[in-house]
Amino acid sequence: MFDTVIHSGTVVTASDTFRGDIGIKDGRIAAVAERIEGGTRRIDAGGRLVLPGGIEAHAHIAQESSAGVMTADDYYSGSVSAAFGGNSSFIPFAGQHRGQSVDDVLATYDARAQRSVLDYSYHLIISDPTEAVLHDQLPRAFKRGITSFKVFMTYDLMNLGDGGMLDILTVAKEHGAITMVHAENNDMVKWMNRRLAQQNLTAPKYHAISRPELAEEEAINRAISLAKLVDAPLFIVHVSTAGGAAIVQREKLAGTKLFAETCPQYLALTREDLDRPGMEGAKFMCSPPVRDRATQDALWRHIQSGTFESVSSDHAPYRFDASGKFTAGPDAPYPKIANGMPGIAARLPYLFSEGVAKGRITLQQFVALSATNAAKTFGMTQKGSIAPGMDADIAIWNPDTTRLVTLADQHDNMDFTPFEGMELTGVPEVVLNRGHVIVEDGQLRATEGQGRFVPRATVDLTGKRGYLAKELDPAQNFGARIAP
Amino acid sequence: MFDTVIHSGTVVTASDTFRGDIGIKDGRIAAVAERIEGGTRRIDAGGRLVLPGGIEAHAHIAQESSAGVMTADDYYSGSVSAAFGGNSSFIPFAGQHRGQSVDDVLATYDARAQRSVLDYSYHLIISDPTEAVLHDQLPRAFKRGITSFKVFMTYDLMNLGDGGMLDILTVAKEHGAITMVHAENNDMVKWMNRRLAQQNLTAPKYHAISRPELAEEEAINRAISLAKLVDAPLFIVHVSTAGGAAIVQREKLAGTKLFAETCPQYLALTREDLDRPGMEGAKFMCSPPVRDRATQDALWRHIQSGTFESVSSDHAPYRFDASGKFTAGPDAPYPKIANGMPGIAARLPYLFSEGVAKGRITLQQFVALSATNAAKTFGMTQKGSIAPGMDADIAIWNPDTTRLVTLADQHDNMDFTPFEGMELTGVPEVVLNRGHVIVEDGQLRATEGQGRFVPRATVDLTGKRGYLAKELDPAQNFGARIAP
Amino acid sequence: MFDTVIHSGTVVTASDTFRGDIGIKDGRIAAVAERIEGGTRRIDAGGRLVLPGGIEAHAHIAQESSAGVMTADDYYSGSVSAAFGGNSSFIPFAGQHRGQSVDDVLATYDARAQRSVLDYSYHLIISDPTEAVLHDQLPRAFKRGITSFKVFMTYDLMNLGDGGMLDILTVAKEHGAITMVHAENNDMVKWMNRRLAQQNLTAPKYHAISRPELAEEEAINRAISLAKLVDAPLFIVHVSTAGGAAIVQREKLAGTKLFAETCPQYLALTREDLDRPGMEGAKFMCSPPVRDRATQDALWRHIQSGTFESVSSDHAPYRFDASGKFTAGPDAPYPKIANGMPGIAARLPYLFSEGVAKGRITLQQFVALSATNAAKTFGMTQKGSIAPGMDADIAIWNPDTTRLVTLADQHDNMDFTPFEGMELTGVPEVVLNRGHVIVEDGQLRATEGQGRFVPRATVDLTGKRGYLAKELDPAQNFGARIAP
Amino acid sequence: MFDTVIHSGTVVTASDTFRGDIGIKDGRIAAVAERIEGGTRRIDAGGRLVLPGGIEAHAHIAQESSAGVMTADDYYSGSVSAAFGGNSSFIPFAGQHRGQSVDDVLATYDARAQRSVLDYSYHLIISDPTEAVLHDQLPRAFKRGITSFKVFMTYDLMNLGDGGMLDILTVAKEHGAITMVHAENNDMVKWMNRRLAQQNLTAPKYHAISRPELAEEEAINRAISLAKLVDAPLFIVHVSTAGGAAIVQREKLAGTKLFAETCPQYLALTREDLDRPGMEGAKFMCSPPVRDRATQDALWRHIQSGTFESVSSDHAPYRFDASGKFTAGPDAPYPKIANGMPGIAARLPYLFSEGVAKGRITLQQFVALSATNAAKTFGMTQKGSIAPGMDADIAIWNPDTTRLVTLADQHDNMDFTPFEGMELTGVPEVVLNRGHVIVEDGQLRATEGQGRFVPRATVDLTGKRGYLAKELDPAQNFGARIAP
Repeated sequence: MFDTVIHSGTVVTASDTFRGDIGIKDGRIAAVAERIEGGTRRIDAGGRLVLPGGIEAHAHIAQESSAGVMTADDYYSGSVSAAFGGNSSFIPFAGQHRGQSVDDVLATYDARAQRSVLDYSYHLIISDPTEAVLHDQLPRAFKRGITSFKVFMTYDLMNLGDGGMLDILTVAKEHGAITMVHAENNDMVKWMNRRLAQQNLTAPKYHAISRPELAEEEAINRAISLAKLVDAPLFIVHVSTAGGAAIVQREKLAGTKLFAETCPQYLALTREDLDRPGMEGAKFMCSPPVRDRATQDALWRHIQSGTFESVSSDHAPYRFDASGKFTAGPDAPYPKIANGMPGIAARLPYLFSEGVAKGRITLQQFVALSATNAAKTFGMTQKGSIAPGMDADIAIWNPDTTRLVTLADQHDNMDFTPFEGMELTGVPEVVLNRGHVIVEDGQLRATEGQGRFVPRATVDLTGKRGYLAKELDPAQNFGARIAP
Repeated sequence: MFDTVIHSGTVVTASDTFRGDIGIKDGRIAAVAERIEGGTRRIDAGGRLVLPGGIEAHAHIAQESSAGVMTADDYYSGSVSAAFGGNSSFIPFAGQHRGQSVDDVLATYDARAQRSVLDYSYHLIISDPTEAVLHDQLPRAFKRGITSFKVFMTYDLMNLGDGGMLDILTVAKEHGAITMVHAENNDMVKWMNRRLAQQNLTAPKYHAISRPELAEEEAINRAISLAKLVDAPLFIVHVSTAGGAAIVQREKLAGTKLFAETCPQYLALTREDLDRPGMEGAKFMCSPPVRDRATQDALWRHIQSGTFESVSSDHAPYRFDASGKFTAGPDAPYPKIANGMPGIAARLPYLFSEGVAKGRITLQQFVALSATNAAKTFGMTQKGSIAPGMDADIAIWNPDTTRLVTLADQHDNMDFTPFEGMELTGVPEVVLNRGHVIVEDGQLRATEGQGRFVPRATVDLTGKRGYLAKELDPAQNFGARIAP
Repeated sequence: MFDTVIHSGTVVTASDTFRGDIGIKDGRIAAVAERIEGGTRRIDAGGRLVLPGGIEAHAHIAQESSAGVMTADDYYSGSVSAAFGGNSSFIPFAGQHRGQSVDDVLATYDARAQRSVLDYSYHLIISDPTEAVLHDQLPRAFKRGITSFKVFMTYDLMNLGDGGMLDILTVAKEHGAITMVHAENNDMVKWMNRRLAQQNLTAPKYHAISRPELAEEEAINRAISLAKLVDAPLFIVHVSTAGGAAIVQREKLAGTKLFAETCPQYLALTREDLDRPGMEGAKFMCSPPVRDRATQDALWRHIQSGTFESVSSDHAPYRFDASGKFTAGPDAPYPKIANGMPGIAARLPYLFSEGVAKGRITLQQFVALSATNAAKTFGMTQKGSIAPGMDADIAIWNPDTTRLVTLADQHDNMDFTPFEGMELTGVPEVVLNRGHVIVEDGQLRATEGQGRFVPRATVDLTGKRGYLAKELDPAQNFGARIAP
Repeated sequence: MFDTVIHSGTVVTASDTFRGDIGIKDGRIAAVAERIEGGTRRIDAGGRLVLPGGIEAHAHIAQESSAGVMTADDYYSGSVSAAFGGNSSFIPFAGQHRGQSVDDVLATYDARAQRSVLDYSYHLIISDPTEAVLHDQLPRAFKRGITSFKVFMTYDLMNLGDGGMLDILTVAKEHGAITMVHAENNDMVKWMNRRLAQQNLTAPKYHAISRPELAEEEAINRAISLAKLVDAPLFIVHVSTAGGAAIVQREKLAGTKLFAETCPQYLALTREDLDRPGMEGAKFMCSPPVRDRATQDALWRHIQSGTFESVSSDHAPYRFDASGKFTAGPDAPYPKIANGMPGIAARLPYLFSEGVAKGRITLQQFVALSATNAAKTFGMTQKGSIAPGMDADIAIWNPDTTRLVTLADQHDNMDFTPFEGMELTGVPEVVLNRGHVIVEDGQLRATEGQGRFVPRATVDLTGKRGYLAKELDPAQNFGARIAP
């Protein structure tokens, strides 16, 4: 009756842990039970942990940077790497270049995504919010089930300005979409760049200096202010600072419709890593930059106390060669080195090892941070948990195996991993996507292109009280009705 | 194969919502699936919500007050009322009188609990922490699976003093038990009582005046300080103030091993209710007292943001007659009126109606607040969720039915309900305890005494960083090892 | 021996209150004593309060708005009005238009200021921070003793952008100058304007809607972030929101080199005033706009607890006619109405009446808020207190007189006062500037042009710990030395 | 005409700094002026700083501890030591033993104080608040101008309990007196003592362990709660923790009628000092104990931002011999060693050196912290500043002299100083009390007994909004009028 039965596992959801079996039929979980007989195929979990397959909600796949550098990973290699990291689905970005229509953007990415072995959707990056984009193209994308838009507060070619952000937030709110934001103050960064250039300080380590904590903290505060003005939900990506996390926490407690994530690199690395000999430090360049140990501790506390919905990878695979980081030459000054690092395969093993194995978080929190919350926040209603009717996206973890991170284990197209040599406990040994085993025995079992596009629902805001500037309240304020 | 199948429901856990069936065997959930055939008995949920049966973690059942007044509800009527309110198990208090051994206390309550229709455990109230109690009797109780102790900071016959609390907290910590505390400053209350008496202000409404918000806020802060000194987990019961909730929130965010609850009366009633004509106000006397509307709003915000693990009833059923509130006469001054109010049947309908139906909380939060968190906090590992292997404690709710609260619907031994006449949406229509239907069609189906004692595990403190006064840290402080 | 003796007064400084006499010689306070005989002129204070003459640190005098509207008050009428309001000196703005050199700006204002009856300096507004301005002209102005620069975060023709602000802050810091900032988010305001225009909501009351509290709060936070990045002192002008004041308080407590003021209009008026019949509301238009009663209460609490150094007038005298508010016609939409209101004469009487007379602040606080702190913050080292060697800038107040505010009593060139009809207790009856009586018996005694330019020292930052983004700390960060 | 003229000084008040002369007549400051001729005696300040003489508001002089140990300093030696430390007046404690009447207490201390060379008052310690004490004796003491009462929350023979504190606070409030409190949780300390004794940990260093930071923080919070309940002003003495200071700051900002001080030992010493070889650590025992460097930094920040009105010495001179610390023998366990340390001579030199000379505080803050605020808080209206009519209590400081602290320079009856060997910059070279030079050229010039008792006024609460538990508000709460 069942296509596949996973038996003898310790099943974990964001709420529960129980011994039991899972019956899979037509790609969906048909039953979970103390004991399930039969099954065309029976997988013996052997007491290992049976978790919802991870959902990677922050990855750059087959995407050109604003400087025109293409990521090393396409939808095949990227999804394969993610699968080896315990993921069953992902939501890379579909990035609009200025002048490009959203329809073109989506057509481009639809073509690229044909190779994916994971189910996928896109977050749609908007860099050019024309009237046509705002009122015609975005609503059309939304109707396809693309319910999250991303904007940048930094990078000259991406930064929308506060007014542009208000426009996007307003449209997103109208349609029930959530707006994601890369929050760093562009002027601060440019000013720092200028200063550093004047002093001829161009080594990779100065990348960290050029994007100070204040730049992120300020921009997070500003982004939230803009979202509050129009009472729209907001998602702060890759929070890298204690100060930024504290703002997010404060606003969430105050009822703002706010969501946030951090990434393993901010937990694992420090700016000392950018000071490695030669150009080695360029491997550790990402934006916002990695910080220091005190920040790592603070971010863990925020993970524990619920400031972050997710821990995502921000997989941005630029190779350590002329095709990636060094398109401007092997000795390029830091502003000309592509910044970003891979991590889609390392995200969950790192989080499991440092989080669960070290007692910082519970298994329930791991599941929530790795899959369940992303599914809820981004409207993947069929995914992110283990329950009847859900897609059979499952990862079987051996919690006791310890291994060193190697490049080969990342299974991506990269020539380095910033996590190289770290000793991590806990390995995703079997991964299923809609009931298909895609990773097993250290081997890929997936077929290129077996992943499907997932139309997404809107974020659930129950219990978020939201905020509308009291001056804007029409009841008290002269009948003005500002926000749509 | 299954004894009972609940089919066609919308199953809800603290993490998930899905359409499906539940197969029950030998009192446990054996399977949840999209479709389950068979079953000796089939219950048609008809699309209604199928939730974990509630766990009432704060109830006074068959218990004498320190003034010697016996509650109107014994383990039969109390458990029946709880069952009609959507609960499958409960944890009333087993109260030690001064001079009494813990073994005697438990023997007494074991006898009383024979009549229960719900599964049960006890929180053990300690009022006399002698050496024998601390080092002999409490460890023995703990071995039986009684893993929560309660202490009072108020009432002359119950209040342990800060030193006594430190002793209890230390013993509790050694054994993995959690200490619950009724936090009100005893001296403040007594001083207020004296002042009010001098002015001959003795009507029920002055009860609210006599126990000011500051008394709770101060005591909550002090209790947490004591627990931090010895790094022991602490549970603050019936938080009634915005200030107290804010302290709990602050300390939780700081990593203190802290848990808390509030109660429906603090969300539903205000001190104006104590000013109803004649002695009517006595119905609304409880300690800490109900407050005001601003407090209600603040407590809801704290429910939404996770300050409280649970919303409990503090069911303290003293009848509005000479057997209950008025043992000291029908015109007794407020300090001689038994204080406490019933609520074990109203707790979940109130929380569902004001929480879920009004959009303040999600269904997931409702399940967590009503059952899952209590199970985790108090170590009822077999209960509190719907998953294979768990006890089949289930409540089927009709979320759409609206009715007025009546005394008759409470099914307790009381002659009033403080929630009388409120219009509530959402009704628990079928309730199961370990697979037995105990409430159905508005009728009791349970057999007196079918409930069983539940040995409990210890609280899971993963992710709680705890606190040990840094001066006490042996590593840095001269080798002193203070806390055990 | 003394030119003038003020006798029998109750002398008040920011620290002390004492009965005594003041001997004045050559424009300076030569002695304060229990009793001083002689004096060419003897003024009998008759027990009244003898205070330091006020210093008005925020006034627009003989200044064109960025839209080209000239204030109704020039240095004669403006200084006369200020004198009647208990002031002995003031620091209006000298505003740079884009393209204009600072030297031109100062030459223009030097000519205008020839008519002043009060001593004066300028805050130099920078709207065009070219290299020449930054590195040549500003240092030259600074050498003349002009030690405060002002920048705008709003208004298209004034707003510098974050990068421009960083440049100004850096130059200011190098020279010991303090940067003042009008903090409102320009994009938010423009976006609101657009929305309101789309709905044809153009009455004066919509001015308040168009500049929401969030716009100020966000900009205050951003301005502080920019100042912290380069570790430069910052002064937030005319704080109008509780949220903004809370940010200032938090940052001051954290040691940021931060200063701030609020204004009487934010304590006295609400946005309801903008909804008066017809165009009457235009009288109450200023930026940031007046708010509500809750904000008033919060601002008073911040005055009491030291968040604000000063309460200034932001005197911006645009007449209620075609020369002022209505250059764009009598029915102009709010964005075309000049915004700003007079208040230089009302500032201190309002603060005295609502502050001292109503028991909100002490006399010491009044003196500090009205004169001493401004002298210290802006480097008027000879002014702001009553002590030997200081300029004899003195105001004799009758604390018991109550009168209604009338336009005539403002002695300015305006045709309205927003404080019209308020009943205020406390009147500055005699005012001296450098020993000259300039107001007495309700009459002006000053000679046009008797005021002198006051070169100013730099702000004292003792005890301000300041902030330099830790990433920028050269000791720990790879030898980079970013900020000068 | 003047008895004494101090000329050519740099006069400093809490508000101002100016070059000038001071004319003294009949013990009072008759004039301050740019130049004063004449004077029976002329003192050349030679450009040095001329400050208000210090007011020591926390000293144990000729006082028995609750264990019966008498301080080494009587009113002669104590006042002489204070004078050498730059003080002109002081307010030691007059301590009630249980059973003793307040009248007896005051008679005893009046006799002892006859020898003082400084002006003085007493803070009246209440350990036995009988009805007669509360309603007869305290009001009588208050009429004599003794307007401050002190209570203890620790020490078995002193601790009043929360109820006793409410009684005292209520009486103090009725009469306009301020209540001072030593805030440490007595039960916590006793519990720690018991634990340490069980482990035989009795060396002086364990004193620091026995009184954890939590004990102070908890008690400060509780004391404030009690004061708020009855809306009475409160003064927290010798705050030693960052957490305690943060509570004080928070409550002050919220408008509570609250005052506080810290002491030099908490800025200068750490618990490492208690671990010096042999019994040497006993020199550094005081209660609350000294903490660590992080606490020192935090306390300085609180000094800078106004959390503390004063920095006092808590001079508690128990000699390092059998008459003082070792009445229970030379190897007594820490609980039997008298705790307290001298510091009345070192207080101001330490504060000047670490505060002013190191740029942490301004001269104005130094004057406020050393004299002006104490005068205002404790009602010494004739003292604490330099202005006509004030007592001529003056200290001339040489800000440039650096010297090492020696025991001899303390001029007390002690055999050690905890500040021994510290290098301090700034020396009070000449000290006057009511116009008499009492210290000059390193010599005492005072006559035994020249000090006078100073009747004191009540604290000025202008601008303190206070707090009355809202439940107690009679207007809203059923006509109850609780607090007097």
